[in-house]
Amino acid sequence: MASSLSPFFLFLITCSATLITPANSLPTFFPGATYQSLIKQAKTPKPKLPFKVHYFPQTLDHFTFQPKSSKIFYQKYLINSHYWHKGAPIFVYTGNEGDIEWFAANTGFMLDIAPKFKALLVFIEHRFYGESTPFGKESYKSAKTLGYLNSQQALADFAVLIRNLKQNLSSEASPVVVFGGSYGGMLAAWFRLKYPHIAIGALASSAPILQFDKIIPWSSFYDAVSQDFKDVSWNCYEVIKGSWEELEAMSTQKEALAELSKAFRTCKSLHSTASARDWLWTAFVYTAMVNYPTEANFLKPLPAYPVQEMCKIIDKFPSGATKLSRSFAAASLYYNYSRAENCFEIEHEVDTHGLHGWDWQTCTEMVMPMTCSKESMFPPSGFDYEEFAEQCQMKYEVLPRPHWITTEFGGERIQKVLKRFGSNIIFSNGMQDPWSRGGVLKNISASIIALVTKKGAHHVDFRSATKDDPDWLVEQRRQEVEIIQKWLNEYYADLRHA
Amino acid sequence: MASSLSPFFLFLITCSATLITPANSLPTFFPGATYQSLIKQAKTPKPKLPFKVHYFPQTLDHFTFQPKSSKIFYQKYLINSHYWHKGAPIFVYTGNEGDIEWFAANTGFMLDIAPKFKALLVFIEHRFYGESTPFGKESYKSAKTLGYLNSQQALADFAVLIRNLKQNLSSEASPVVVFGGSYGGMLAAWFRLKYPHIAIGALASSAPILQFDKIIPWSSFYDAVSQDFKDVSWNCYEVIKGSWEELEAMSTQKEALAELSKAFRTCKSLHSTASARDWLWTAFVYTAMVNYPTEANFLKPLPAYPVQEMCKIIDKFPSGATKLSRSFAAASLYYNYSRAENCFEIEHEVDTHGLHGWDWQTCTEMVMPMTCSKESMFPPSGFDYEEFAEQCQMKYEVLPRPHWITTEFGGERIQKVLKRFGSNIIFSNGMQDPWSRGGVLKNISASIIALVTKKGAHHVDFRSATKDDPDWLVEQRRQEVEIIQKWLNEYYADLRHA
Repeated sequence: MASSLSPFFLFLITCSATLITPANSLPTFFPGATYQSLIKQAKTPKPKLPFKVHYFPQTLDHFTFQPKSSKIFYQKYLINSHYWHKGAPIFVYTGNEGDIEWFAANTGFMLDIAPKFKALLVFIEHRFYGESTPFGKESYKSAKTLGYLNSQQALADFAVLIRNLKQNLSSEASPVVVFGGSYGGMLAAWFRLKYPHIAIGALASSAPILQFDKIIPWSSFYDAVSQDFKDVSWNCYEVIKGSWEELEAMSTQKEALAELSKAFRTCKSLHSTASARDWLWTAFVYTAMVNYPTEANFLKPLPAYPVQEMCKIIDKFPSGATKLSRSFAAASLYYNYSRAENCFEIEHEVDTHGLHGWDWQTCTEMVMPMTCSKESMFPPSGFDYEEFAEQCQMKYEVLPRPHWITTEFGGERIQKVLKRFGSNIIFSNGMQDPWSRGGVLKNISASIIALVTKKGAHHVDFRSATKDDPDWLVEQRRQEVEIIQKWLNEYYADLRHA
Repeated sequence: MASSLSPFFLFLITCSATLITPANSLPTFFPGATYQSLIKQAKTPKPKLPFKVHYFPQTLDHFTFQPKSSKIFYQKYLINSHYWHKGAPIFVYTGNEGDIEWFAANTGFMLDIAPKFKALLVFIEHRFYGESTPFGKESYKSAKTLGYLNSQQALADFAVLIRNLKQNLSSEASPVVVFGGSYGGMLAAWFRLKYPHIAIGALASSAPILQFDKIIPWSSFYDAVSQDFKDVSWNCYEVIKGSWEELEAMSTQKEALAELSKAFRTCKSLHSTASARDWLWTAFVYTAMVNYPTEANFLKPLPAYPVQEMCKIIDKFPSGATKLSRSFAAASLYYNYSRAENCFEIEHEVDTHGLHGWDWQTCTEMVMPMTCSKESMFPPSGFDYEEFAEQCQMKYEVLPRPHWITTEFGGERIQKVLKRFGSNIIFSNGMQDPWSRGGVLKNISASIIALVTKKGAHHVDFRSATKDDPDWLVEQRRQEVEIIQKWLNEYYADLRHA
């Protein structure tokens, strides 16, 4: 597989590159560029989505009135009005860090339920991603342009666009429900908290809103990845855990690298063991995230329960094989389930897309410290904030504001805040997803509901229904529909009453 | 009286200068510069306030990460810790458009109640006012610097400063109650809405949060001013209403202006009737605002119920006198109750303080359209948004965002939003205050309480208690204390329970 790696991916690489020194980088939600490369290489054309593309003239900076603030950029959004009529609900997907079509294609749930609710579907692209780049190709150039990329501005974009859209549709009374997955789920939940006058409810799927500051233990994420593998097979967990040392033991001398290149079936000779390490690391983390119960193609084409399949490969290996070779074979499932690859393009290439987006966001406000504990299947590492900040300063000439998100949205008391002031939010999570540890896993109140499945993975509930869906997934989605229906009933009852 | 008029005042002048053309400007909360000039001329020294002055290194721009965003400026705040001990409440005044010492001096209520609550008192100055100017003397130079002056940034300032202060005091568990009057009251209420994790409640006095977009009729403000005068005497109202025409009838010819200068006892000859008109207009509007039940000196030294006193002057006038001369005599009460002035400095002088602050805010987000109805005692006028916007463009090279405040905080549905999502807010209002018409005048829920007095004026409840306070004022303050006590009891009970 030839992959054109983006900074999303680079960022993860940085993480595992700190194998020896304390880890001081943060994992990304998605290996965005890998997805990009998949698109580019896709032999089958992109599936035609049932949406019309629109562009909204959006204000660059909602929170200052600098001479540049009122500059307009064109924010992309997708509309499906097939089932809708005036006054009926509007379901808005609050876009996250990527091309909005990608999220639309992977949020079939909204299309599935639209007829029942006669809902208008709107997918709004997040500023600085996809086509919604305020400065075109210059958008990722420096802090001067990237400075306008953050969650506050994104939330304000959604507010302004939705209000405008409703006016243009002459359907001001239509209730709006926001949907979001992953970082988009955080945005949906925060939107409901900060703009309750615009959205009557939010379905936040796999939204790790507790992953900030010191709200949850920093080792939670990698402990959860490890748990996924441990749960399938202790041997599998131990093999992966032991493989890093074997890899580390290989020197960077030409012969050793040549040997490793051969073992890892690389298309080109490796220059360091670090890239092989990152390649493995990525495979395990993302496979845990998308450990879906059915065959699926979100990040990569993968079989049902891919963690189980990886562990089968490891466990069935002939005795005497090294841990590293077993880990490689398991990781190959992630990169080559479709068996289209003759060799692997392991070392990263220059990113030609300039999708610095998420890396920038982690260097400014999205600071989610993570460590690897001794119990994880990754090499133990800490989080050195000073070092992290220094890297950000070097890369972007910007210093992170690690306490900003908790100042703006609530920190350790966020659950109390939600209980008292929030309402109509569903936090859906699947415990296979390592991000679930930063999610809301218990009901907070009668109207802030946690829908947690043991076997679910990263926003699996947002995927289109399939005939193979297990009962727990069918049930999770049924509950979501039921709750949303309740919100809408209350809203319309209120409206009639007024 | 020699007055050095600031743009606060200029702004009001623009308003009445549109006597013939439709009024397209907005009144200010306070004639700030008049206050400035009072300070400068005060023969008695400024009263020594029981506060220690501090400066907080504040972030210039909380919502972007431009190269300039992280620039630090020093935000002034005042502390009184005389009654406080660790864990006890923190009462924060969310500063508005002026020198924080002015608000501290006129919010004696907080000092009065501090011992009962063992409260720490904190008065935070609003960015770009008083000493809290991010670019020193250059702060008001252009949109490039002024661009950072707005309510969102101010709220974020409060959040960051309060969080930091609590950490430094090692008193994270101290409940914070925010207090604010006028625009500061809007900020206090909005702060409770947007940052409920930081403040457990808000007392918003005379906060016209409904004065935006089309939430209330645009003529409300000037109708309310007129009502104050009508209520005292129909004749008084009719005299003032008729005086504009008499003034208008005087030409701008030298003889007529000389005559007017003499009649108005001006220190220097007038150049136009417009300044005389503005001078009268200001006196009537601000006297209605500060129609306090006791002698007071907020904007100017004035007797108890000054509207009544003004109307006494008008009503007792010898028959045959012109309406204009009666109006002048009444207005003189506002400018010369202390009888220190031998002549009046009516035409505005160059503003040496550069306090463009509020004018800038009305030209950006604080767009509160106002008109004069036929029933008001002012000449009928409309609100021409296009013309208003053009003026802002000319003055600051910036265009207003007239729908931003309602997008950010809720528009016509704000009361519903408060009912469902808000709690622990007191909206106190006095119906003498024309700003009360933009306030919340009815209880919204069990914990969003409106305390309205018929005879109260602009945040009179915030003034220090005096022995002459009428019962209704004593009772309003008693209820405020009782409600705040309830919030605190609930908070501490919750804390013990946790």
